[in-house]
Amino acid sequence: MIRRLLIVNRGEIALRVVRAARELGMQAIVAHSKADADSLAVQQADEGVCIGPAQASKSYLNIEAILEAAKDVGADAVHPGYGFLSESPDFARAVKEAGLVFVGPEAAIIECMGDKAMARQTAIEAGVPVVPGSPSAVGDLDEALAVADDVGFPLLIKAAAGGGGRGIRVAANAEALREELPMAQTEARTAFGDDRVYLERFIERARHIEVQILGDGERAIHLFERECSLQRRRQKVFEECPSPALDEPTREALCRSAVALAEHVDYFGAGTLEYLFDDTTGEFFFIEMNTRIQVEHPITEAVTGVDLVREMLRLACGERLRFTQQNIGRRGWAVEMRINAEDPERGFFPSPGQVQRLIWPSGPGIRIDSCLFDGHRMPPFYDSLVAKLIVWDESRDSALTRAGRALDEFTLEGFATTAGLHRRLVDDPAVRRGAMDTGFLERWLESELASTESQSASVKEAL
Amino acid sequence: MIRRLLIVNRGEIALRVVRAARELGMQAIVAHSKADADSLAVQQADEGVCIGPAQASKSYLNIEAILEAAKDVGADAVHPGYGFLSESPDFARAVKEAGLVFVGPEAAIIECMGDKAMARQTAIEAGVPVVPGSPSAVGDLDEALAVADDVGFPLLIKAAAGGGGRGIRVAANAEALREELPMAQTEARTAFGDDRVYLERFIERARHIEVQILGDGERAIHLFERECSLQRRRQKVFEECPSPALDEPTREALCRSAVALAEHVDYFGAGTLEYLFDDTTGEFFFIEMNTRIQVEHPITEAVTGVDLVREMLRLACGERLRFTQQNIGRRGWAVEMRINAEDPERGFFPSPGQVQRLIWPSGPGIRIDSCLFDGHRMPPFYDSLVAKLIVWDESRDSALTRAGRALDEFTLEGFATTAGLHRRLVDDPAVRRGAMDTGFLERWLESELASTESQSASVKEAL
Repeated sequence: MIRRLLIVNRGEIALRVVRAARELGMQAIVAHSKADADSLAVQQADEGVCIGPAQASKSYLNIEAILEAAKDVGADAVHPGYGFLSESPDFARAVKEAGLVFVGPEAAIIECMGDKAMARQTAIEAGVPVVPGSPSAVGDLDEALAVADDVGFPLLIKAAAGGGGRGIRVAANAEALREELPMAQTEARTAFGDDRVYLERFIERARHIEVQILGDGERAIHLFERECSLQRRRQKVFEECPSPALDEPTREALCRSAVALAEHVDYFGAGTLEYLFDDTTGEFFFIEMNTRIQVEHPITEAVTGVDLVREMLRLACGERLRFTQQNIGRRGWAVEMRINAEDPERGFFPSPGQVQRLIWPSGPGIRIDSCLFDGHRMPPFYDSLVAKLIVWDESRDSALTRAGRALDEFTLEGFATTAGLHRRLVDDPAVRRGAMDTGFLERWLESELASTESQSASVKEAL
Repeated sequence: MIRRLLIVNRGEIALRVVRAARELGMQAIVAHSKADADSLAVQQADEGVCIGPAQASKSYLNIEAILEAAKDVGADAVHPGYGFLSESPDFARAVKEAGLVFVGPEAAIIECMGDKAMARQTAIEAGVPVVPGSPSAVGDLDEALAVADDVGFPLLIKAAAGGGGRGIRVAANAEALREELPMAQTEARTAFGDDRVYLERFIERARHIEVQILGDGERAIHLFERECSLQRRRQKVFEECPSPALDEPTREALCRSAVALAEHVDYFGAGTLEYLFDDTTGEFFFIEMNTRIQVEHPITEAVTGVDLVREMLRLACGERLRFTQQNIGRRGWAVEMRINAEDPERGFFPSPGQVQRLIWPSGPGIRIDSCLFDGHRMPPFYDSLVAKLIVWDESRDSALTRAGRALDEFTLEGFATTAGLHRRLVDDPAVRRGAMDTGFLERWLESELASTESQSASVKEAL
């Protein structure tokens, strides 16, 4: 049993874990930077403990300070949230060595599945299809060219230690590969402290579909899939559960493959297996695993009724999985809109500020995960996610309509957000049809921009 | 199809109907009193239209002004919400005669089921058990005494036109009946303009359980039951879905009886059949029907996934019921806490005021239906309900725990509310066991008061 849980994160996910912990009778202590001392997560927690200054490197990424804080407050477990140290095997190991429970898999599993090349190799062993590419990290250009001969162009060059869409380049041909490879390696070393890269076939117009799993080290179950194809600069913007692209046999095969892979590594905790799905052929390819809770987990909660964060905490307490696969049902459809403090009119420039007026949408099927409150001044040091608007309804179409209604109600004054972009997206005919791929949103934004420019050009001409 | 819906109500239910209307592509126009001109319901509606001064008799109950407003704004339908004119056959008739759609049953059905004596008679015809009592309204004392001979004391004297717990007296014996009957008749004439009263056996420690139904005039379905035994002065305070008191065969029998009664009158729209349940014998008795949406409808929505207000609007548009009984499933457990602007420390005295600081709870399974927003000044003219906190979870026990967590998060400064009372209730061992009856809350409040008084007495002694 965990009595005092230290939550090493900030923003909405820190608050999300506070909620789950309190519902399980645990005391929730939020480890926060100085800049986050008055955050809603800290307010709602049983306690807060400062772990350093605003810079993440000196607070949210500072393992030593975190372990000291854990000792100071008498914590017996640590939840890392997402981002920051959530996928650091060093952190997981240090937490364990300090005699505390790490809410997540063992360091060795994080190491194996967090490394993209190793994860790929593991998937192959478990019989899970992967994108054709290099079997592991490529050492030099010759090796890379040999892979290219085999797989064909265009190719993706991916940093083995990358994640969240960072550390990826495209090579259209051999010449580009010659040029990009050393740059990708240098970049990988700078960004992730690890210069290993690997190659993958670039599937154009692929969809991004991921499977949520829970494992207790012996047995794993899936909680169906999420589609996250609407991305900007490889960052997810809008997600839904289930995916509109899958028929039942494909859904079944995809989800079973995720369970097979999770059980192959005796997976423990909550995890997500990410796939590319080619809806012209119906093929899916495993690409990577996230060994932590995801930003978009609430849509799975809305559809299955399972509280994923509570389950993570129960598993960390040593409980076995409480569900069989047959216990996990689906009801209706859920979408999540990531509302960022960014100004779409100004190239999505971050726009942190002070909340002047805030009215959340509500009513049936609406959930808001956010740390905003009236008067709150957003610290400018961190990522720009300010609210997740999660909308459930009986069908995909009604969920999108309800999302539009909720966005109409949503009132936030004080800084620009991407809520208006979502408002237009949910009414877009292609989005309504579910005809999306990972490049869709960027093409859509370009064509929106072009039409705005041509409009202002006609206005100028008319003047 | 309804294009422009006039919502003749205020507070959270007006906003609730705005949401449903907008999701169906209707324009939502809120008819409001002068005191409600800046309400959140009006802000979120497509339009607002003033129908008179603050006094309800001159605005929300003013049929003439409402019909004029409907004409002015070009409305083609009227939703009455709950309370006010929602169960007035005269209003339903006037709306229809003005060529508009009334979102609810025909005036004749409201008349028949809204009159308690007639509803009772109808239930008997449909083979639905009723509380032993007078077959219809009692004319005079002799008739009343004859019923008492038959049914036994204690007896309830109920106004035929009463509702919402108003217009009810208890007579413990013949002498009391002699005294109370004329008073009850006078009171009924004053309060409801109709002096007919009827008698019923007073079932001590009964539970209040009600069944939600939907009908399209040909076919009816149930959406399971709600338990509303926690009441103060016959006003519901806390409701849950399903009831913890029913086993599956009893639930099935109860819900089927509600469908039988609804189909017997060719019921149209959303309705609720209220029953008393005697958990010592397992017997249930129909007591009355509400021919409108109920305050506590969201817990049914949370458990079944059906949007009841949207379904009312669809039915009013002439659609047939979209569900068979087999389509209606249950998942988990939901509770609703009515948060009133009343001060439990001062005899539940109404405490309207201005919102100074407001933070809603959120996270999985939480829904708030409320018209509060930061800075809002509550008009002092209407009832004191300011927010409904609806909490869903996988089981009853976890829903109560989650409700406690949500109430801990809930922050409202500016006036006293009953939230603290709910916080204590959800942790009460008897509430946890589900051992409630309609007298439970008043006994609980008395014993809380007694313990506070004895505490302050010991403090005084110690000083």
